[in-house]
Amino acid sequence: MQLGVIIGTVGATKKVESLAGQTFLLVAPEGHQGPALVCADRVGAGLGDRVLVCHGSAARPDGAPIPVDAAVVGIVDHMDPD
Amino acid sequence: MQLGVIIGTVGATKKVESLAGQTFLLVAPEGHQGPALVCADRVGAGLGDRVLVCHGSAARPDGAPIPVDAAVVGIVDHMDPD
Amino acid sequence: MQLGVIIGTVGATKKVESLAGQTFLLVAPEGHQGPALVCADRVGAGLGDRVLVCHGSAARPDGAPIPVDAAVVGIVDHMDPD
Amino acid sequence: MQLGVIIGTVGATKKVESLAGQTFLLVAPEGHQGPALVCADRVGAGLGDRVLVCHGSAARPDGAPIPVDAAVVGIVDHMDPD
Amino acid sequence: MQLGVIIGTVGATKKVESLAGQTFLLVAPEGHQGPALVCADRVGAGLGDRVLVCHGSAARPDGAPIPVDAAVVGIVDHMDPD
Repeated sequence: MQLGVIIGTVGATKKVESLAGQTFLLVAPEGHQGPALVCADRVGAGLGDRVLVCHGSAARPDGAPIPVDAAVVGIVDHMDPD
Repeated sequence: MQLGVIIGTVGATKKVESLAGQTFLLVAPEGHQGPALVCADRVGAGLGDRVLVCHGSAARPDGAPIPVDAAVVGIVDHMDPD
Repeated sequence: MQLGVIIGTVGATKKVESLAGQTFLLVAPEGHQGPALVCADRVGAGLGDRVLVCHGSAARPDGAPIPVDAAVVGIVDHMDPD
Repeated sequence: MQLGVIIGTVGATKKVESLAGQTFLLVAPEGHQGPALVCADRVGAGLGDRVLVCHGSAARPDGAPIPVDAAVVGIVDHMDPD
Repeated sequence: MQLGVIIGTVGATKKVESLAGQTFLLVAPEGHQGPALVCADRVGAGLGDRVLVCHGSAARPDGAPIPVDAAVVGIVDHMDPD
């Protein structure tokens, strides 16, 4: 998984039908200069939260066949080292 | 998912049979200098639309076994921050 | 999918048995400086053809469990813009 | 698989329910400057261990549908050349 | 698939049980400066062999649910152009 920080939200009224109800979060990846990722929210993360992002097939809730390739799957509350 | 902008279309008369009927869009990825992506269109996106691109297995409609690894799955209409 | 140009072929007499009969094409990716890719040919592409490359699980013909992670799945005949 | 070294641990009290009980390790990838990875521990690795990291669908224990995309799957004890 | 050259072997006594019996090869990727990959050997490749590396789900033998994300699946014996 990848570490990142929630920096915003993304809305898409017109989307694949199976994406209805998904919340899309904008995540700044930690530790490199890449562009922000758009991730489905699976934990109720909020602005400024440091999170775990899961990529690929595993990002889909219970393997549901929806077009999601990245999801926020945890909110980091401690790291060692910090 | 990845943010991008529709910059054109791609046609391939000779292709794997299961790709018949697919529309291929050229998408410029946002926030980095990479080459344009070719994505299957799943939402009726048009030139200049800012879109969500899904990569990998999840890009295939309903898990159909067609050789597609990227799809436009939503049209972005608001972002916060913009 | 990714755009590329066919620049050669690759032969491997000793290979995983399920790869017997596959043609391996050398593809120069368009728009960046990366190394050439080795792709299974699924459309009869030839030297100099501009092609669509599909990566990942979707590259396998009909989901067959063969060790292929990239395939040429279409020959580009028009692009707009060119 | 990728070589890396265990440099810490990550805790996430709030996470997708199916991740309960997983230990998340912070792994510095070997040989490049990328950011640390967060990996599920499948071998009981400890700080300073040089490990094998598996990415993607194969990182999930026995294909369980949990949102994990990277796992520590072995502890390296010899390399030739070292 | 990716071209590479076998430069060594990796041993991991402590590993996920389903990896027992796998040979792990160290492969230097061709054409870029990335770190060496650790690949499961599926063809009996040896030091100095130029090989084809398959990544992702397709690298697993017959789809077996083992944590392998890269495998040597062929030994290159001719290329055109060389």
